[in-house]
Amino acid sequence: MSAIADPVDNAVRIDGGRLWSRLMAMAQIGATPQGGCNRQALTDGDFSGRELLRGWAEAAGCRVRVDAVGNLFVRRAGRDDSLPVVMTGSHLDTQPTGGKFDGVYGVIAGLEVLQRLHEAGVAPLHSMEVVVWCNEEGCRFPMAMMGSAVWSGRLPLDAAYALTDRTGRSVKDELERLGIATRGAVTRQPVKAALEVHIEQGPVLEQRAKTIGVVTGVQHMSRHEVIVEGQEAHAGPTPMDMRRDPIRVLADVLPALYAAARDRGSDARLTVGIIETLPGSPNTVPGHLRFTVDVRHPQIDPYTELRGEIESVVRAALRRHSLKGDIRCVWEAPGVRFDTACVDAVRAATVALGYDAMDMVSGAGHDSCNTAAVVPTSMIFVPCAGGLSHNEAESADPAHLEAGANVLLHAMLALASA
Amino acid sequence: MSAIADPVDNAVRIDGGRLWSRLMAMAQIGATPQGGCNRQALTDGDFSGRELLRGWAEAAGCRVRVDAVGNLFVRRAGRDDSLPVVMTGSHLDTQPTGGKFDGVYGVIAGLEVLQRLHEAGVAPLHSMEVVVWCNEEGCRFPMAMMGSAVWSGRLPLDAAYALTDRTGRSVKDELERLGIATRGAVTRQPVKAALEVHIEQGPVLEQRAKTIGVVTGVQHMSRHEVIVEGQEAHAGPTPMDMRRDPIRVLADVLPALYAAARDRGSDARLTVGIIETLPGSPNTVPGHLRFTVDVRHPQIDPYTELRGEIESVVRAALRRHSLKGDIRCVWEAPGVRFDTACVDAVRAATVALGYDAMDMVSGAGHDSCNTAAVVPTSMIFVPCAGGLSHNEAESADPAHLEAGANVLLHAMLALASA
Repeated sequence: MSAIADPVDNAVRIDGGRLWSRLMAMAQIGATPQGGCNRQALTDGDFSGRELLRGWAEAAGCRVRVDAVGNLFVRRAGRDDSLPVVMTGSHLDTQPTGGKFDGVYGVIAGLEVLQRLHEAGVAPLHSMEVVVWCNEEGCRFPMAMMGSAVWSGRLPLDAAYALTDRTGRSVKDELERLGIATRGAVTRQPVKAALEVHIEQGPVLEQRAKTIGVVTGVQHMSRHEVIVEGQEAHAGPTPMDMRRDPIRVLADVLPALYAAARDRGSDARLTVGIIETLPGSPNTVPGHLRFTVDVRHPQIDPYTELRGEIESVVRAALRRHSLKGDIRCVWEAPGVRFDTACVDAVRAATVALGYDAMDMVSGAGHDSCNTAAVVPTSMIFVPCAGGLSHNEAESADPAHLEAGANVLLHAMLALASA
Repeated sequence: MSAIADPVDNAVRIDGGRLWSRLMAMAQIGATPQGGCNRQALTDGDFSGRELLRGWAEAAGCRVRVDAVGNLFVRRAGRDDSLPVVMTGSHLDTQPTGGKFDGVYGVIAGLEVLQRLHEAGVAPLHSMEVVVWCNEEGCRFPMAMMGSAVWSGRLPLDAAYALTDRTGRSVKDELERLGIATRGAVTRQPVKAALEVHIEQGPVLEQRAKTIGVVTGVQHMSRHEVIVEGQEAHAGPTPMDMRRDPIRVLADVLPALYAAARDRGSDARLTVGIIETLPGSPNTVPGHLRFTVDVRHPQIDPYTELRGEIESVVRAALRRHSLKGDIRCVWEAPGVRFDTACVDAVRAATVALGYDAMDMVSGAGHDSCNTAAVVPTSMIFVPCAGGLSHNEAESADPAHLEAGANVLLHAMLALASA
């Protein structure tokens, strides 16, 4: 490896051709008839994908190791290999009907950074690593972002090991079946900065014709379940004023929920994803209503207000109609503010490379939410077609993927140079 | 049979003891662990129930015949057997988790009328019949009020024969298996009046502490299905103004539906029994929404207005949110106004017997909706506990059942006397 002094040559660029062909090669593993991917965590397909990456990485002069929870690290030594690493990465596992880009892009773009520097003979001061986090999707084993949670100290290793899929196979069983050593702890190497490049999974960049999203953080988010108990009654003989009709609560609550979200500005998100009535007969007043409310906001104050208003709207409607019921929070993930130095490095790379960019906040969770808890972290988004993700039709423009990889390259170079 | 001249002795009364013990005996056939009945149409249990009734009827000096669609008629000759009959009856089949009273009460009370007159030696001018309509519930073979529909000329016999249950057995197969002749047509005997006594299946009589409901007709009723097509989107990254969220339509429509019903007075009924979201994930904006609206009103003008307003409310909300969708009527049953002379006979009997009564309109369909299309018809309701029906916990007060049977007796006597 040659040793060029910093500042590095700004002319080093990733050409998107190899990136694209590797994405397409990876997509062959677990390819679905609809053009998507089914490569769920710790399946043979997932293992094959990781082995494909390992081959590319070793051919590019990198060293590969796997930790006890199945996170795979590709390392390229810097001039002082004892310094904290500059890390990037994402995941290779997919949803059962996932796409070709979610996660995979971040891993392959990261490898491209290391390989391009190898080919250009550029050795930054700090070592660099590309990580493949194990079980990000959480669809087979019910814990999204599992590997990064263990690495970050947010989830005990034994809790991850004990997770089982629907057939009863545990994470530990599957790691061992795939030849991954499950002896010893997961230790966290010193990290100077962690970046992750990812498709946006939303429509904003596309609609605003931007190439790069400089991600400054992740929304506060929580999920709520509302239960209303009514009384089953025949739709014909039962007068309206003698009913205990849970849909009355929904009629009051839905408009109030949307109004509460609107009052918190354009960054607020409110989603009623599930509504269920029981017994579910067209001529029976439901005895039971269940619905979910997902609420998100990037700022803590309007987020907290919105959560509170949703709860009080539901409770007021229950009281108004004298119906039993409850609203409870079933899941909450606090928002994340990414590290200023990391965000600045991404923004500076974007400016230097001349891409149209905008600051934005991630609406979805990522492994970077876990790493941000323990090491300086930020993310880079590129557009995806129609905002579609977790979908076999997931698609992205090769030029945008190339741009994102170059922003990653130059932000990592900057962070690794001093 | 002795021949007492009209007017008959007003002192003839039904004692509720035998009525109750026969209801309990019938409930043993197809008894369920929860205290209800499962005696679905044209099963062995249904056949056993009909045979039990036949034994009681023949012991009471009555003649039994069964028509080609399985309607069973118990006849007691009047002084002039050539005159049109005064008829009563209901059904013996039940829902899979039905109760002891729905339908059964009307049949056994009718038999009690004939037997009590037999025992008292009273022979009215007109003959009387008790009918057991075949397959009223429509749960096994998907056509409610099947036997009365054929008898009334509203359903071709072959259409009834062709109905199949989930195992593929047809009505015709099952009639023949049970030894019921399926050769020949269903012919309608001349009928002077048809009465039906039934539990209310709603809470009104109980809540108003009335013993008898003088039923003047049946509500107009229809069932509507609303479909709204949205676009699946991730709850996090997708801004509210870039969504195609079908729940927006529901938020607009639900309050407007209840307001529209309220504006049509206390007789209006509006029920949203089913709401379904697809794919049904808490963090995905639904791509598809379906819900049902059941609407009923006893008067045609407010009924028609309400139907129209519901449709326009839905269409306006679809336009407002630029979403594709539709509302369509999937079932409609026009309202029925019962025969004035029959209603008057019931009311007069109620007054003569001194029962607390109120006029009311049936919210549910009954075999009497079919007979009313071709012969003078009305109904008598008695309270049932909590308005519960189509439920194993269905229950009624023996004193109320006795009262209803006596109203039936005296109304039939009055109608049969001239």
